[in-house]
Amino acid sequence: MKAVNEFVLVIRDKTESEKNGLVLPEGGKVKPHQGTIVSSGKLVKDPDIKSGKGKKCLFHKTVGFELEFEGVTYLVLMGYEIIGIV
Amino acid sequence: MKAVNEFVLVIRDKTESEKNGLVLPEGGKVKPHQGTIVSSGKLVKDPDIKSGKGKKCLFHKTVGFELEFEGVTYLVLMGYEIIGIV
Amino acid sequence: MKAVNEFVLVIRDKTESEKNGLVLPEGGKVKPHQGTIVSSGKLVKDPDIKSGKGKKCLFHKTVGFELEFEGVTYLVLMGYEIIGIV
Amino acid sequence: MKAVNEFVLVIRDKTESEKNGLVLPEGGKVKPHQGTIVSSGKLVKDPDIKSGKGKKCLFHKTVGFELEFEGVTYLVLMGYEIIGIV
Amino acid sequence: MKAVNEFVLVIRDKTESEKNGLVLPEGGKVKPHQGTIVSSGKLVKDPDIKSGKGKKCLFHKTVGFELEFEGVTYLVLMGYEIIGIV
Amino acid sequence: MKAVNEFVLVIRDKTESEKNGLVLPEGGKVKPHQGTIVSSGKLVKDPDIKSGKGKKCLFHKTVGFELEFEGVTYLVLMGYEIIGIV
Amino acid sequence: MKAVNEFVLVIRDKTESEKNGLVLPEGGKVKPHQGTIVSSGKLVKDPDIKSGKGKKCLFHKTVGFELEFEGVTYLVLMGYEIIGIV
Repeated sequence: MKAVNEFVLVIRDKTESEKNGLVLPEGGKVKPHQGTIVSSGKLVKDPDIKSGKGKKCLFHKTVGFELEFEGVTYLVLMGYEIIGIV
Repeated sequence: MKAVNEFVLVIRDKTESEKNGLVLPEGGKVKPHQGTIVSSGKLVKDPDIKSGKGKKCLFHKTVGFELEFEGVTYLVLMGYEIIGIV
Repeated sequence: MKAVNEFVLVIRDKTESEKNGLVLPEGGKVKPHQGTIVSSGKLVKDPDIKSGKGKKCLFHKTVGFELEFEGVTYLVLMGYEIIGIV
Repeated sequence: MKAVNEFVLVIRDKTESEKNGLVLPEGGKVKPHQGTIVSSGKLVKDPDIKSGKGKKCLFHKTVGFELEFEGVTYLVLMGYEIIGIV
Repeated sequence: MKAVNEFVLVIRDKTESEKNGLVLPEGGKVKPHQGTIVSSGKLVKDPDIKSGKGKKCLFHKTVGFELEFEGVTYLVLMGYEIIGIV
Repeated sequence: MKAVNEFVLVIRDKTESEKNGLVLPEGGKVKPHQGTIVSSGKLVKDPDIKSGKGKKCLFHKTVGFELEFEGVTYLVLMGYEIIGIV
Repeated sequence: MKAVNEFVLVIRDKTESEKNGLVLPEGGKVKPHQGTIVSSGKLVKDPDIKSGKGKKCLFHKTVGFELEFEGVTYLVLMGYEIIGIV
């Protein structure tokens, strides 16, 4: 899938507990506020994000929503919601 | 029918139950959040959507409204509501 | 009358019951959501609508308001409220 | 007086009852939704209204407010509130 | 004092009762909705107002606020609040 | 300190009572609505304010907030909040 | 980490009590409204902030939010929230 408009598709990093195979109940999970850019729409304004495929990015933990497609769970962000890239 | 402005006309994909001939009551249906672009208005900003006729697109399941014309039910979206194309 | 600004003047199609000479009470009528473009203001943005005089157009049934002038009832729409043309 | 900004000064047409010398109580008057353009401000966007001095124009009956100046009562409209010209 | 931004400094016309030396209580005064342009800020958009120093202008009686400076009471308006000039 | 964005740093004029060494309780002070421009951000739009360092300016007494830095109390205004310069 | 969009990453100055090794309870801390610019996104509009890496900046104490990354606590500001640089 390819992002369009100002959308950015991100694969969220796994939390420590997820890596260790622990699946905590929804309320107890701390969702990490970073992930990897998979695709950036052509209307994304910041050039570092637009061409940021594969880069780590940081965002506020309250933004975005999840979208599942062909078994992959993407975090859908607006380009302007990304705070920093690493 | 040809879309105008920033509107995009989409034919929503059938859900699994619809394909199997099962017609579930309204409340029980899970509407798929993807479909095929039929027509894009000239004011649609993303070039991938503007020239996206026939392409699969993904969108949040809460957006758009249905419009019936000559027996076809279109999902009417704003171009900027489409998240990704496949 | 000539439309100005982003306004579009439309003559709404008659419903089936209106064509058959039946005049149903206001609450029972289903207003068709299509009509014919009579005039488009110069500030209408979509070129297909701007030069769409005489074309059929579709719109959401909740938009617009009626304006009577010299015995003709126009539906007044903003250009960006038109979804498609036929 | 000369209109400025996006303002348009209009002399409202007299209703039938006003022409016949009948002065109905405020609540019973039906204010006509047309009038003659007296002056258009330089920031009016539609060229047909900007150069529309002396032309009849139509507008929704709820827009505008009245301004009296040297015995003349003007209806003050924003240029974008005018729907059509005749 | 020189106006800046989109501000316009206006000296309001005296009402008839003020001219006759009558000072009515605040509630009973009818503030005239015209005055003389003293200074227009450089960001005022209408060229007639921008270069309108010394001209009479009309405005809706609810707009603006008063500012006293060196004994003079100015009515401070935004340029786009002025309806007409004379 | 140098202002950035559309901010303007102003040193408010002292009121008469402050000049006379009287320090009135907070509620009784009448804050003067003028002051001296110390620094204007590069995004300030009016050229008279942008290059207005050292000039007296007037503003509505409800705008701005105070910021202390190295013992100096600045009034922080947005450039577009300044009404006039002297 | 590199800031993107209009975001600016700032390391807040330590308060006097923090420097002295005193750790006051959350409610009693007075957070200083200044810090050092670490990174500015490419969409930051003021050129002094965009190229302000390493400079001291001032901001209103109510703006921004904290983001921790690799053990460093950044204050995340929008570029237009910075009032002055030193």
